[in-house]
This record gives sequence, structure tokens and C-alpha cells, in this order.
Amino acid sequence: MEAGQPSALGTQPIFRQMTLVGMGLIGGSLALAAKQAGAVHSVVGVGRSVANCEVALSRGMVDRVAEDLPSGARGADLLVLAVPVQEIVRLLPDVARAAEPGCLVTDVGSVKGQILEAGDEAFPDGRFVAGHPISGREQSGPAAARGDLFRGASWILTPGRRTRREALDRVATLCRAAGAVVLQMDAAWHDEVLATVSHLPHLVAYALMDAVLATERGGERIRFSAGGLRDFTRVAGSDPVMWRDIFLMNREALLRVLADYQGALARLAEAIRNRDGEALEARLRQARVAREEMVHRP
Amino acid sequence: MEAGQPSALGTQPIFRQMTLVGMGLIGGSLALAAKQAGAVHSVVGVGRSVANCEVALSRGMVDRVAEDLPSGARGADLLVLAVPVQEIVRLLPDVARAAEPGCLVTDVGSVKGQILEAGDEAFPDGRFVAGHPISGREQSGPAAARGDLFRGASWILTPGRRTRREALDRVATLCRAAGAVVLQMDAAWHDEVLATVSHLPHLVAYALMDAVLATERGGERIRFSAGGLRDFTRVAGSDPVMWRDIFLMNREALLRVLADYQGALARLAEAIRNRDGEALEARLRQARVAREEMVHRP
Repeated sequence: MEAGQPSALGTQPIFRQMTLVGMGLIGGSLALAAKQAGAVHSVVGVGRSVANCEVALSRGMVDRVAEDLPSGARGADLLVLAVPVQEIVRLLPDVARAAEPGCLVTDVGSVKGQILEAGDEAFPDGRFVAGHPISGREQSGPAAARGDLFRGASWILTPGRRTRREALDRVATLCRAAGAVVLQMDAAWHDEVLATVSHLPHLVAYALMDAVLATERGGERIRFSAGGLRDFTRVAGSDPVMWRDIFLMNREALLRVLADYQGALARLAEAIRNRDGEALEARLRQARVAREEMVHRP
Repeated sequence: MEAGQPSALGTQPIFRQMTLVGMGLIGGSLALAAKQAGAVHSVVGVGRSVANCEVALSRGMVDRVAEDLPSGARGADLLVLAVPVQEIVRLLPDVARAAEPGCLVTDVGSVKGQILEAGDEAFPDGRFVAGHPISGREQSGPAAARGDLFRGASWILTPGRRTRREALDRVATLCRAAGAVVLQMDAAWHDEVLATVSHLPHLVAYALMDAVLATERGGERIRFSAGGLRDFTRVAGSDPVMWRDIFLMNREALLRVLADYQGALARLAEAIRNRDGEALEARLRQARVAREEMVHRP
């Protein structure tokens, strides 16, 4: 599953100028990691938020900030789209107009099918490489960015029919320089997998907070949450716009695993309703074994 | 909400002999904490598992192990029931026969209504004090016990009509000596609250593991779980028998909040299905605000 060649760090940068569209947690962390590894010569930031631009400049993530996409793209041999997934799709045609010939383009969105499609359409010459680092923190924004965010994390690349091999390899080399383990995957399978292990859990957490709050004296109940609720709802602290976009863009896969989950929940409820201790214990035991396998998996 | 008087540590033990029925995580941690604080003179353990007895002895949690309840109860001025909730209810009549006159009895179960009822019936003289320390770890058993498990945690006591004030105060003093903050609460409200902040989140985690596993190539998907799924399912590693019992004993309250939760989930699913970004974002935003309030609450 490993893609590309080992990086030749220390000799010369992989990219001359990386232009970052979006200076949030992921974009900012990539800029820090790439700079620390000497993988890019310079970083230019494009962002609508003045506050984010200032943080990015003051933390040394970017060498300069550009006013708009066309001026930010000038001189870039890599453009990284690190904005919410719906915005990536919306921006891609503009990016194609702004990017210089030979400039590679990649993204870090959590949904890949639709982005790959839009990227392949915008870059028929195969310069677009769809990617997704499996990493994140509860906090968002450039202030939360860390140069070691991707260390040991999986960075999934989902090349399509058009994606050029050299483009894939160069982007993979950058991801590795940032500390990640690069995996190659089919975009549709990526979206199924992420719906299961990330999008559904986030949806579940949001629903849990929603339900708890709506109970009588909900705020008072929340006072008594020790590990239980707190653990579950860490992710409910994530950026609502980012997650709204992810849920909507990965709609089909998410609704499928959600239906599976609602079924599992209904079966547990049924066992409780029927006071069926045996069935209940068997289900809990199975879930625990699976969970232990997950934790002990390398 | 504070119950009882401040403890007079360092002068003399609160109890001469604490007999612990069940030497798992909670019982073992209480024994360690009480000994470290000088709150008990000696601890006797009663347990069916030879392995647990050996760990409890070797870790100095108990001074000796008794073969059965009657011999363990001999000489005790406090009996602590630290076994799964259904077993507490089942044991209470035996405990009433075995306990010496004046011996106080308490428990640490996560459901209180039914236990209080059984305790009040077994001890018409009001010597039973129903309690629940809001604390826990993923691991179970005496090897996971820690003397600081209750430091800063809430220890809820749910006295009933019969509970004697002195009994309540002495048990509260022990809980405080173990490092906990003692709160007094109505048993029915305790069960509602815990159904919301603990039992439902655990059920949700078990259902999530169940659903993920049942997907096509589920084991492969699990490999890609970064924060998301892992956070949610920490609690799915808990003891299945303990949780089976809790779910069944708190059946009514749990099914009520579960129905609320299923409704919240269905509303989110509906917004996704209808591609209603506005409604979706509003719900996510509200959940995040609530979650932040929870985290920043003292």
C-alpha cells in the first residue's frame, strides 16, 4: 500500500514554494512540519481570516500572506487546499485558472470521492493529488497547529484515473517528510472507511450532546459526567462548519453506516426492554473483544 | 448538597474493621485510599475469585481474606458491597443476617433506586447507606485499583426514608477521607442523571463497536480509526457483566434517555438526508457550545 519513493531529505527541498489555501489546524501543521523538515523552500498563505493570517505569520508557518488566490498561486510549484470540503470543490476551477503550468495541487479533505472527481475535471493533465491525513485535534485554527501533528499518522492518498504518477510520488514524499505514513487507497473505499471510523462517531457525539441537553435539567445532569460523557463528546467540540460539510459531502456512505448503527442500537435496546441478560451480555462481550483488538493493533 | 461533618483525620480511624465484599477496581481502590488515609484500622476481603484475593493481599489492600460472608462480617463495623449491582441486591438479605449489630453497610453500585429499596428492607433500623463514587477506569479488577482513584471525584450518597443520620455521616466521612467530594441526592434522580451521563454513553459505545464490526471488512476499517472511534469506545472496554447488570437495573430511566437520543440522531440523519445544511450546522453549533460549557464547568 506504500506509495512513492523514500524522501531524500537534507539534500534539497521537495517543493520550492508551497502555497497554502486555508491556514487552519491541518494547513498550519503541514506548513510547520514541512518547514521543520526542510521539505519546502518557502510557504505562502492565502486565507480570508485576517486573524488567522496574523497567527500564521507570527508563528512562522508562512513567509508571506497573499491577498487572493491568483497572487498566492504565483510562483508556487505546490498548492495545498486546506479548507472545508465543500469549499475545496468550489475552489478547484479557480485554482486551475490560477495555478502556474506544472504546479501540483493537493488537498487534505476528509471526503475524497467528490473532491477527486472535481480535481480530475479541473486538472485533466493529472496534476491533482487527492489526500487526507488521518489526524486532528479537538481545537481548530492556526494557534492549535503543531509541527508534529502528523508524526506516525496515516496520510491517505487516493489517486484517480488521471492522477500522474510523478505528481503522486512528489506529494507522498512531502507527506512523509511531515512525519506521516503514506497509504494509497481507492477514493470510494476511503469514504466508506472514514464514514465508519470518523464521520459516524462524530455524528453520534453530536447527537448525544443534543439529547443530553434536551433532557429536563440537562445542564445539571452534565455536572455529573465523569469519564463517560466527556470521552464521547471530545469530538463534539470540533468545528461545526467543517463537520456540516463532511456530513453532507459523505452523505450516502454516512447514511448507510448510520442505518447499521441505528440497527445495532435498536437490538441492544430490545435486549434491555425484554430483560434479556444473556443476549445483552453476549453483545457487550463481543464489542469489548473488538475494541481490544483495535487498541492493540499496531 | 454536602452531607455530614468534616473528617477528623489523624486522630483515630473512622472504622475499626472494614469488610469488603468484592475486591475489584472500586473496592480495591477504596481499601487502598482508606488505609492510606488511616481511616480504617483493618480491611477484610470477601471474594469468590482466588486470583483477585491474591492480588488484594499482595498489594496490601486487605489484611486478610475471609472464606465466606459470615466469617468476613465477624468483627466488622463497616461492610462495603463492591460487586455488580444485581449481586448487591441479591446479597443484601444475607448481609443483614451476617452483619453484627451496629455494623454499617454501604455499597458502590451505579444504580441506586432498587438497591436502596432492597437495603431499606434488609436493614429496617437504617444502617444501610446507598452510595456511588463517580469514578472509574477502563480497566477492571484489583490490579487496576489505585489509592487516588477518588481524589476530587464526586461520591454520591442517596439516603432513603429509613437511613439513619449518624450512619450517613460516618460513611460520608470515610468517602471524604478517600479523597472524594460527597454529594447527597435523591435515588431516583441519581438514576436519571447517571442514565444520561454514563449509562447511555456506554450503551452508545457498545452499539458503535457492534455496528462497525458488522460492516463489510470491519476489521480493516478499524485500522484507520484515529481519535474518533478510539475516544468513543474507551468505555466499550469495560466489564460486560457489570454493564449488563447496570443496563438491566436502570432499565426504565435508560430506555427513556435512549429514546431521546434516538430522536436526536434521527433529526440529524433527516437534516443530512434532506441536505439541509442550515439545520445541520445549527445543531452542531449548539452541541459544541453545550460541550464547551461542560468542559469548563468546575
